[in-house]
Amino acid sequence: MPRSGEDARRRLQQAALELYQERGFDQTTTAQIAARAGVNERTFFRHFPDKREVLFAGEADLRAALVQEVADAPDGLQPLDVLLCAFRKAGRILEDNRPFSEPRLEIIARTPALRERDLAKGASLTEALAQALRERDVPARLADLAAQTGWATFHHAAQAWIDDPSRKLDAHLLQAFDDLRALSATA
Amino acid sequence: MPRSGEDARRRLQQAALELYQERGFDQTTTAQIAARAGVNERTFFRHFPDKREVLFAGEADLRAALVQEVADAPDGLQPLDVLLCAFRKAGRILEDNRPFSEPRLEIIARTPALRERDLAKGASLTEALAQALRERDVPARLADLAAQTGWATFHHAAQAWIDDPSRKLDAHLLQAFDDLRALSATA
Repeated sequence: MPRSGEDARRRLQQAALELYQERGFDQTTTAQIAARAGVNERTFFRHFPDKREVLFAGEADLRAALVQEVADAPDGLQPLDVLLCAFRKAGRILEDNRPFSEPRLEIIARTPALRERDLAKGASLTEALAQALRERDVPARLADLAAQTGWATFHHAAQAWIDDPSRKLDAHLLQAFDDLRALSATA
Repeated sequence: MPRSGEDARRRLQQAALELYQERGFDQTTTAQIAARAGVNERTFFRHFPDKREVLFAGEADLRAALVQEVADAPDGLQPLDVLLCAFRKAGRILEDNRPFSEPRLEIIARTPALRERDLAKGASLTEALAQALRERDVPARLADLAAQTGWATFHHAAQAWIDDPSRKLDAHLLQAFDDLRALSATA
């Protein structure tokens, strides 16, 4: 995509985020998003299929990054450590992008239509992680369980980061995986 | 609701399940479900708001049962053990109801619109479980993490039960929580 296309795309994402914060997701139209971004509505639909997807445009990148990190993790790591390793690297992208990712997560949390989409994306991402673990020769049953519980732990850490911005996402991630270990050890 | 109302409700659920299996969820109309159940379409909408909800009618009962089991679990149990205890009791209902619950889970797994609804119900149920754990004086952070990872483990076990019906759901649940412990111990 040419540079001007990338610029329009970013302006559309920023405009959508601002409008969802100001007046709520349900009250915002694609025409309003396009107007604030200074483009016409056709340009909006050239970049995004609907007003939900504006907030999930980074999903494919996140998924590709996570799958790659799982493949690249050092040999000999246990499945949950492989995932923690991948989540920490992906977490840096979220952290560096905090001015966008924090309000984004807040809007998703309070908008049912966006939460449904987010959950569906999470389920699909969990399957991709399980597949990536199987390709490291983790048995299918453990790969699936590790992906499901690992993703649940990542999700919990991301929410904790939104609720308590005084610590970095990375600190919340380490804490969450430590907590999971403690919870499981005593069970 | 009078007995005849309960009968109609059960017949509608059975008819919907059969039709979703035979021709798929998207190709089935509420009129067809009503016809097979031997009632008119108005009766369908007296019992269910839409054709997705027919498959989630037991959700409120499951939620109430799980929350009650968490409250009733013996003192001194650790959070994940409290949840395992609750899941095992709820699992008996699914097991006893296998002729309905097995095809139901299969249809959900292969129908995107139903998976979205199922994920949303799961997220809401996870919040109810976290709340029930907090009422047992589990600190909020651990209650949330235990509920999220515990629910992910239950979900994994239910899928394993669908894939491998030679063992009871209870055996899959015990296996899944054992596996989680093993995964976390080595992490």
